[in-house]
This record gives sequence, structure tokens and C-alpha cells, in this order.
Amino acid sequence: MSAPVATASIGLETAMREVAGEVDRQFDLLLAVPDDPRAELYKAMRHAAIGGGKRLRPLLTFATADLFAVDRQCTARVATAIEAIHVYSLVHDDLPAMDDDDMRRGKPTVHKLYGESTAILAGDCLHALAFEWLADEGAHPDPFVRVELIACLAASAGPAGMAGGQMMDLEAEKASFDLATVTRLQAMKTGALIACAVEAGAILGRVQPDGRRALRGYARDIGLAFQIADDLLDAEGDEAVAGKALRKDAAAGKETFLSLLGVTRAREQAAMLVDQAIEHLRAYGPEADVLRAVARYITERDH
Amino acid sequence: MSAPVATASIGLETAMREVAGEVDRQFDLLLAVPDDPRAELYKAMRHAAIGGGKRLRPLLTFATADLFAVDRQCTARVATAIEAIHVYSLVHDDLPAMDDDDMRRGKPTVHKLYGESTAILAGDCLHALAFEWLADEGAHPDPFVRVELIACLAASAGPAGMAGGQMMDLEAEKASFDLATVTRLQAMKTGALIACAVEAGAILGRVQPDGRRALRGYARDIGLAFQIADDLLDAEGDEAVAGKALRKDAAAGKETFLSLLGVTRAREQAAMLVDQAIEHLRAYGPEADVLRAVARYITERDH
Repeated sequence: MSAPVATASIGLETAMREVAGEVDRQFDLLLAVPDDPRAELYKAMRHAAIGGGKRLRPLLTFATADLFAVDRQCTARVATAIEAIHVYSLVHDDLPAMDDDDMRRGKPTVHKLYGESTAILAGDCLHALAFEWLADEGAHPDPFVRVELIACLAASAGPAGMAGGQMMDLEAEKASFDLATVTRLQAMKTGALIACAVEAGAILGRVQPDGRRALRGYARDIGLAFQIADDLLDAEGDEAVAGKALRKDAAAGKETFLSLLGVTRAREQAAMLVDQAIEHLRAYGPEADVLRAVARYITERDH
Repeated sequence: MSAPVATASIGLETAMREVAGEVDRQFDLLLAVPDDPRAELYKAMRHAAIGGGKRLRPLLTFATADLFAVDRQCTARVATAIEAIHVYSLVHDDLPAMDDDDMRRGKPTVHKLYGESTAILAGDCLHALAFEWLADEGAHPDPFVRVELIACLAASAGPAGMAGGQMMDLEAEKASFDLATVTRLQAMKTGALIACAVEAGAILGRVQPDGRRALRGYARDIGLAFQIADDLLDAEGDEAVAGKALRKDAAAGKETFLSLLGVTRAREQAAMLVDQAIEHLRAYGPEADVLRAVARYITERDH
């Protein structure tokens, strides 16, 4: 992505590949292994961060920022910071005390390779680095834009967002949540960071909060559709393709969209949300085609 | 601290008590327990954050900001954000996979009371909230000041600071570090956040980086003196007074200032650093008396 090719002109698959390559390059640059006793810590961060995942959140930041012709070096840095928060959450969620997973993105989880204490610290470091990268001029020359990006990311990551949703998810094993509570849980656990990835593109584009309403609606709908699709993949998917253990929710007796709605209604709901997400983009022309393609991809993916 | 009493006019003990009270009030306000499945998460954060500790870092932020007549509501918010990072690090450091401690500040550790998964998430949430609070206008009306505070705190918390130092500390059980490496380890593990607490006061006071040199020197010296004093307390202190387990470093075979220097030279070194820290403040008058008193307190405290 050294040449500033806007995502809209290259189609979803190429855009995904280019964004994934750019995020890997950023992590490689930002997580250079030091020649001191912290080398293992950096190797653990690199293992978690580089060379895996769909990079859905960075793709959303790029596709949204491209609507407003944002400098792509800034977008790359911001997208990488948001992905760092996602990666840290995976490292911590996989810990034995949390979901106790051995495989992630087809590789051993960080604590399996580097031990639990290094995994906890690698997650903590990625968490701090995300904010360090956003506070730096490389994220945007205007400090007002940077502080807005930080406010957005911190709120999406904390107890009102991702980490709060993860707490509700742990509680879900003990309680029996209804559809409204599961919807809120998922809107926090995965929806908040997905929404932040879209919002960050709009913040970089200096779109005023009023003008972000349609993009927010789009983000909220694809966030929920993403989670319903995840539930379907968890129930019906192939562990080898997913690169991680599946069918853990049912084993833990947790209520999910699938357990509450059943397969048919869950599929209908996801399809309806995708249509609704695309409808939110009606004010945009072909420049928003990647965002539309992402919405469709979310329910069609196999991992 | 509702009345804007400058720390310098009230003596160290009163200043410590007032700052501790203000930090507790801030945490109480900012961590109100919600009536939903995240209640345990907030209770765990409150258990870790409220009613304990010397509040050394907030005291340093207040005492430094008071040199420059900073709005005390802003200082309170910023000092609380810095303390939140300190508290999150204690919660994670106490985990079974890390230092495996049962007691902290005379109370059971968070994972002992709330379980490991909640402790991990409570730490993660305090980490994110610290940046959310700094990004908010309550920290300072000028976004440029806020973003500088965030950059300072993120760098102090991450792999180049506190978490990197903790990683080196874990490696210290396997390796045999020399004095230079132990000094660097401690400068990162505890020194970086102490330095940030002082620097934050100067950032709030809009002191330009050039003008911060003396305060930086002060902070670096008290940070090292603090750690040497900690080593001495760890070897000679009373667990009941400390409120936590002691003599763990020697048991783990870690090199410390004490093991490398011996008691007599360690004491001399700490006293020399305190004198040097106070000398850095020579350009300031009585308004810096609390900073001077903090430097002396650091080697005279019993916990």
C-alpha cells in the first residue's frame, strides 16, 4: 500500500489483501525486537499481531477513510492501533483463566508458546502501544483529531465496550440471558470496536458527529450481523478452516443468537442486518462499494 | 480537596491525606457500579482502586502541578488516571501466573476475591479507562495538553516503561543481571510511571520540554531511591505493616540493588539520590517544599 490506491477501485479481495499486508508491515516496523531481556515480550507480541486474521477492523478504517480522501499513512497507523486493541483482547481472552484456548488463527495461542505471564504482559503492552501510536503525530497532525481517536478507542475497549462485553460473556455461563441482553453483550464485546474502526475513518476525515450518523448505523448493523454469522460458524463451521476451537458456547451452556433464534431466524436476521447496513450508505456512490462488499462478506465468509 | 489548598502550604502528611481522599472520591465517582451483569467487574475495580496505597504518584502530580497553579479539578482527574495505570499493574502483577500474591495493601488481592478472569478484565478496564479519562475535557480543556498527557502515560505504561520492566523482572529469575541492567529494569518498572506523574504536572502547567529538565532529574532520582528503599523494606520490613508478602525477591534468587550493593552501600546510594533529587529543585522556592518532603519520605517510610 505504498501507492495510494483507494480501496473502492480495487474490489474487496484485493483491498483485504492490501490492507492485511499494510497492517503486517506496520506491526513489523512498530514491534522491532530489541536486543535486551524484553526480546521474548516482543516476539510474543509479533506472534499475536503479525500474519493472521481477516483484518476486518483495519479494512473498515481504510474503506471509511477512503470516502474522505484521508492521508493513507495516517490511516495505516490508526488502523494498526485499532487492530492492536483487537489482538490484545484475543491474547487475554485465550488465557487459561478466560476461554482457555490452545489455537488461534491456526497457530498456537501466545500463552501456549511463551507462557502465561508473557502473554498477559504482551496483551498489556499492545494495549498501551495502541494509545501511544494514536497520540503520536504519525496518526494525524492535528492533536484534536488524535484526542478524538483516543477517546473513541478507549471507550470501545473499556468496560462500556469490549472488556465489559467480555465480562458479560463470562457471566453468561452462569446466567440465562434473554435476546436483549445477548444483543447488548455482543454490541459491546465485538460491536464497539467494529463501530470504532468505522468511526475512526470518519474522525480522520474530519466528518462532524452529525454527519457520522449513517456510518454509525452501518457499523452497528454489520457488528451484529458479524456476531450472528460467528455464532453460525461456531455451530456449523470447520475447525481447520476457522483455525481455532469451535462449538465452545454450546458446551458452556451459553445463550447465543443461535440458541435463542434458531438457525433459520438467525440467518434471516443476519441477512436483514446486512441489507439495512447497505441501506445506511445510500448517500454514498461507488466510493462506498468496499463498505457494501464488507457487509455482504460478513455473512458469506467461511471463517 | 474541594477548597483549592496548594499542597506546599499544608505539609506532607496533610497533603498525602488530602490527595488520597481526592483520589478515592474520583475513583468512587468514575467507577459507579452499574445495575447489570458487569457489576462484579466494577466491584473488582473498586476493590483494587479505592482506599489503599500511599498514592505517591497522584501526590507527585499534585505537588508538581501546584508549582504552576494548575486548575485542581484537572489535576485530580489526571492524577487519578495515572493511579489507575498503577492499580491495573498491581492487579495483573498479583495474578497467579505472575507474582502470585494473596495480599495487597492489607487486603486480599483481586483474583483471590473475584477470580482470575475478573481480575484480568478489571486490570484491562482500568488500563482503558485511564486513557478515556485523559482524553476527556475534564483532564484539560486544551486537546494538545491532553494528547501530550496521553503520550507520556502510554509510553510510561508500555514495553518501554512499566510493562517492559515487569517483563525484565520476570527474566531476572532466570538470568543474573548486573547493576546496570537492574538499574534499567527498575527505571522502567517503577521509575517510568513515577517520572510520568511528575511530568504530567509540568504538562498541565504548560511548561515547555526544556523547562522540565530539572523536574525530570528530580523524578529520575526519586524513582531509583524509591526502588532501593523498596528493596530494603522487602529485606527488613514487617509484612503486617507492608500489607503484602515480603522477601520474595531473595527467595526467587533475583538480583536487586540490595543483593548487588549490600545494605550499607544501598542505604548510602538512596540517601545520595534523595540529596541529588532535592538539588534538582534549587530553582524553586518554598512552593516546592512538598516535592522535597516527598523525596525525603521515600527513604524514611516503613511501607
